[in-house]
Amino acid sequence: MLVSGKHYRTIWLNEKDDKIVSIIDQTKLPHSFETVNLKTVEDFRWAIKDMIVRGAGLIGATAGYSMYIAALEASDENFDDDVKKSGEILAATRPTAKNLSWAVARQISKICDNNLSVAEKRKVAKTEAEAIADEDAEFCRKIGENGLEIIKEIAKKKNGATVNILTHCNAGWLAFTDYGSALSPIYAAQNAGIDIHVWVDETRPRNQGASLTAWELGQQGVKHHLIADNSGGHLMQHGLVDMAIVGADRVSLGGDAANKIGTYLKALAAKDNNVPFYVAFPSSTFDFEIEDGVKEIEIEERTGDEVRIMSGKDKNGNICDVQICPDDTPAKNWGFDVSPARLITNLITERGVFEASKEAILRVYPEAKK
Amino acid sequence: MLVSGKHYRTIWLNEKDDKIVSIIDQTKLPHSFETVNLKTVEDFRWAIKDMIVRGAGLIGATAGYSMYIAALEASDENFDDDVKKSGEILAATRPTAKNLSWAVARQISKICDNNLSVAEKRKVAKTEAEAIADEDAEFCRKIGENGLEIIKEIAKKKNGATVNILTHCNAGWLAFTDYGSALSPIYAAQNAGIDIHVWVDETRPRNQGASLTAWELGQQGVKHHLIADNSGGHLMQHGLVDMAIVGADRVSLGGDAANKIGTYLKALAAKDNNVPFYVAFPSSTFDFEIEDGVKEIEIEERTGDEVRIMSGKDKNGNICDVQICPDDTPAKNWGFDVSPARLITNLITERGVFEASKEAILRVYPEAKK
Repeated sequence: MLVSGKHYRTIWLNEKDDKIVSIIDQTKLPHSFETVNLKTVEDFRWAIKDMIVRGAGLIGATAGYSMYIAALEASDENFDDDVKKSGEILAATRPTAKNLSWAVARQISKICDNNLSVAEKRKVAKTEAEAIADEDAEFCRKIGENGLEIIKEIAKKKNGATVNILTHCNAGWLAFTDYGSALSPIYAAQNAGIDIHVWVDETRPRNQGASLTAWELGQQGVKHHLIADNSGGHLMQHGLVDMAIVGADRVSLGGDAANKIGTYLKALAAKDNNVPFYVAFPSSTFDFEIEDGVKEIEIEERTGDEVRIMSGKDKNGNICDVQICPDDTPAKNWGFDVSPARLITNLITERGVFEASKEAILRVYPEAKK
Repeated sequence: MLVSGKHYRTIWLNEKDDKIVSIIDQTKLPHSFETVNLKTVEDFRWAIKDMIVRGAGLIGATAGYSMYIAALEASDENFDDDVKKSGEILAATRPTAKNLSWAVARQISKICDNNLSVAEKRKVAKTEAEAIADEDAEFCRKIGENGLEIIKEIAKKKNGATVNILTHCNAGWLAFTDYGSALSPIYAAQNAGIDIHVWVDETRPRNQGASLTAWELGQQGVKHHLIADNSGGHLMQHGLVDMAIVGADRVSLGGDAANKIGTYLKALAAKDNNVPFYVAFPSSTFDFEIEDGVKEIEIEERTGDEVRIMSGKDKNGNICDVQICPDDTPAKNWGFDVSPARLITNLITERGVFEASKEAILRVYPEAKK
């Protein structure tokens, strides 16, 4: 997608030296756009651990590239062992990130324990890293294509009047290698010339909406307004939202979707006001082992300081942390909530648009049958 | 209520000089507790306009005291005219605050256009100011008594296990002269020895939960945790909320309640999870002219900067504003939303606990019949 008019992915092989991987430092957004060069496995470990990169798709792609760098670092004598050791270190960086260990394992299966020469293995690692990143972008592009049809329908019904779309958190290209999941249909609609406007939930406590989604949409020239997370219900009551679309962190076989905390409240408001509510994600987000998402998906509890302390830019342009409550106020902070399938109009993946129900999911994903 | 163990109201006649009115500077909370002395009508105008005092009940009480000071300032020769002129200036300070013009009018009706001497009028103005403040506190105390019965029932059902109560915004004693509306039953429950714990919505964008409610509860020693506004749905899904209680800014004859933006989302989550949802307020909050609150109550739109910029205490202890989004991100900001009566378990006023329906309201308020 575009940054100051120039096309970027969130991760790429450095144009001057293909032994270096470049990324966007997402901790600096939205106040500063900086890219970082990763040259060693240790650099990658830092980038993943300190959330310089974040988002399921992007973490997977970063893990893919990190294994290419691991292959460059590995000794000729102990190549396979060295690569596997790097893989272990990387996979332990954020143990709950499914795509991280998945990409590491995919690379190892391609480059270790086979008859290729070390030179050939390094070449394969590079090709595979590019393939993982490309696949992620391609899946997101298809999600955009599938979601576009929904927006087209609404635009038609509104006779070309502005289509108002509400989103929560950041499920944009910054969370993947390109396009995004929930934002991909929005970008596709913009390209198709549809008049759209996005309500951006700021997404407390970490403000990914205010810092990332608002930034992405601004760079792409998509009309939008930032709103407090509290506003969505009022907007829907008054006909100011035509559809809601969010990403997902895990979706159960029953169609329940875990996403950033607060998503469930928007799903309820959408239902109460007959606003269609969509969840968009690549198929890798499915967890077919779980049927009842509300009961079975474990919700990460994070430090209360994310609620107590806000970060932003002060009047001198410096990044500053401010405490918004009394010194001794304790806070609780859950990262996600689960929107039950009954509140979701349809799911959108790279395979299509379908009902959030076990029946529909098994029809689209026959491999999920036990 | 208590501040550092000492009893305070939000407004009082200065103990050393009863021609001075003292208030708490609420713009300094929670980071600093400071009181301010108001000596002139101009001081009062500033205190109301700059929101040094806020909250319906407290604004009414402040207006009452301001007219006492106006009576002291008025000339002996043109007493009535001078007082009325001051009243006009004060009422224009925050034109939408119902209690402001109400208290001004109440004072004028007592002290102007009668046969009392100027000295007697000044005495009456003082007595009436104290009466308005006392009435506000007394109504809030009764709301607490009425709401206590509900909490007692829940505590009994839970066999003495902690009763978890969720609240949104600040409807505590800081918004009235004492006790508060939504928080009054909580303080009453604490006094009754019931084991309670409060989930405090931070209440973006102005963070009245984080800055005022958390501070109040901390000063009173009531167990609580600050949470992001996004968290309530998740908590209710997992049985961590026994009841929700909020205040109101305006309640229609049909029982629809306008309150701080985001209240409606909590009312929806409460309904979806069978959590009882109460709205507590003094009777003056009723607007019997309006029946359908969702359609008819006008919602104030405020500056988007309240969403874009957050205020808090930096690491050096200084109050600092930080911007949480890109420089050019536009924001929209509505102050309130309306929870339809169908989502409200019961209303609580100083007259009792009753259904949020026209029938029940007319039964308790026969004077509302046209």
